[in-house]
Amino acid sequence: MQLSKHELEQRLGHVYDTLIVGGGAGGLSAGIYLQRFRLSSLIVDKGKARSFWMQELQNYLGLPPGTRGRELLQHGKQHYLSLNGDLLNGYVEEVVDEGETFAVRVKVGRQDSIYPVLRAKYLIAASGIIDYLPHLDEMQNVYEYAGYNLHVCMVCDGYEMTDKQCGFFAGSEASIEEMIFNLSWFTPYITIFTHGLFPVSTKLCQILQEYGYRLIETPIKQFLGQNHQMTGVELVDGSVIPLETGLISMGARYHHHYLNGLNLERKGGYLVTDRLARTSHPRIFAIGDLKVGLNQVAVAVGDGAVSATQIWKELRHPRKWIENLSAAV
Amino acid sequence: MQLSKHELEQRLGHVYDTLIVGGGAGGLSAGIYLQRFRLSSLIVDKGKARSFWMQELQNYLGLPPGTRGRELLQHGKQHYLSLNGDLLNGYVEEVVDEGETFAVRVKVGRQDSIYPVLRAKYLIAASGIIDYLPHLDEMQNVYEYAGYNLHVCMVCDGYEMTDKQCGFFAGSEASIEEMIFNLSWFTPYITIFTHGLFPVSTKLCQILQEYGYRLIETPIKQFLGQNHQMTGVELVDGSVIPLETGLISMGARYHHHYLNGLNLERKGGYLVTDRLARTSHPRIFAIGDLKVGLNQVAVAVGDGAVSATQIWKELRHPRKWIENLSAAV
Repeated sequence: MQLSKHELEQRLGHVYDTLIVGGGAGGLSAGIYLQRFRLSSLIVDKGKARSFWMQELQNYLGLPPGTRGRELLQHGKQHYLSLNGDLLNGYVEEVVDEGETFAVRVKVGRQDSIYPVLRAKYLIAASGIIDYLPHLDEMQNVYEYAGYNLHVCMVCDGYEMTDKQCGFFAGSEASIEEMIFNLSWFTPYITIFTHGLFPVSTKLCQILQEYGYRLIETPIKQFLGQNHQMTGVELVDGSVIPLETGLISMGARYHHHYLNGLNLERKGGYLVTDRLARTSHPRIFAIGDLKVGLNQVAVAVGDGAVSATQIWKELRHPRKWIENLSAAV
Repeated sequence: MQLSKHELEQRLGHVYDTLIVGGGAGGLSAGIYLQRFRLSSLIVDKGKARSFWMQELQNYLGLPPGTRGRELLQHGKQHYLSLNGDLLNGYVEEVVDEGETFAVRVKVGRQDSIYPVLRAKYLIAASGIIDYLPHLDEMQNVYEYAGYNLHVCMVCDGYEMTDKQCGFFAGSEASIEEMIFNLSWFTPYITIFTHGLFPVSTKLCQILQEYGYRLIETPIKQFLGQNHQMTGVELVDGSVIPLETGLISMGARYHHHYLNGLNLERKGGYLVTDRLARTSHPRIFAIGDLKVGLNQVAVAVGDGAVSATQIWKELRHPRKWIENLSAAV
């Protein structure tokens, strides 16, 4: 059930089989599997999983193209709660390994916060990535269009940009270099905006010229458009660049600081996992965007199934009919 | 599009970027991703993917619990066709590696069959597992109940059997040994049926006795029930065993004989793959039930995304605006 502060108190003495950090696509899939394996689970969700921002999910088998990410999450939560899983709105601050169990300190409530400690035998880290738009903070109207025709994921939405006049809102010189091999496969009609925040090397300028891409270093004043459809940008010098679509190079921060005390093996910001999604700690799994691999809803959902099934294999044991005979008849 | 024999002729000179063998959950997910990556794909589907038989899919995030497997497949095919993917009803007989391409011979049509050869740069083997009920063939009425409350997948449906009077229809002594650690976690009220087809060792009999499970070696005459709900079995001696649910130990045959000439690395019947779902051949991927791992819809769908994305990364190249300028304006 969705835990209120009152119900939370009753859970303080309980040891869950698994605590899942994050109620996005991966965490919900793991929770559904765990509950169906007759294991007790708690999902601690801070809200706003990455897929919450997906205005249109186009590539997940079984859902009609264009389904909103938040709709997937809502259905998933209902599904999980219908299986008697526990769900707590909160923010995991720290995980301590107590040997047989983990003690997980959670911040609950933005005001008058409380800091309950919950316990579980296994941990699934499904807290993913937090995106941010570091250089465009002053242009709040970016949120009018982000996730609509101003895309944030190349793999997900490259197709939607096919052969359109596209603005690429770069975060760094490296993001431009990468973009040449990614975005241009979908559309060659690319205008790159640096917002004047970093210099572009002479060598890269030559390459851009060779490919015929435009480079605009003048800062942007605002995005133009209506009804969530971006139609171009206005620069601070007053000029207007018409666009049909855009791609923002988002900054990303892995959300796993609560595991810092556990010295898990990492590769870059990612957690290293084996094919069962297990980290270097035998009772901690990492799924979805936190682990090395492709950041996609479909992959996170599969990871959830794999990690939950492995935990079941480690916790299950045979039950005897004869012990239960009185209950059976 | 769904290819008729006429359209098929027009495709004979075409080299697809990827040919996908199998239109189940994994193959359709791969096809949706490939088409959205602007790559040309052909799915060759013999019909009746394993999930076609799932009467109720309970554990796939985003679909209401109880969705029929065939509904998922229908929606997936529509999704794929809406992205202009090609789909051919046929049976892949042989794959020959021609160096740059594969030549794939397909049998089309059960009567007056034709045997076109189609070509592709990459191959995704998504042809999964064919289940069979070897010992129960004479009891055709098993199909009235299989996939309803007579379950065929422990991981999927163990939950549905919780604490119910359950018949386990064993295929071998090994399947009984495995069942003790699997099924009994969900319900201890187990009656094992061997159908008299194989002996059970004294040692195993003792274990079963210890756990209190019943063993019935008398052959089964028929399943009892109505409206797809099995209520028990009638034995050949006329006695009736009431049951609330059941689990059949299915035989499974990996469907990848068409790859026999290619000497791919195997482990048991599985194809060995790396984390990108690539086999030991650099241009052949294997996804879903064919590869080592968990046989679940969620996993196959994730595999489809991963393999298609990798193929895109290998085939994509930058496009120049200047070459396209005349088309752009």
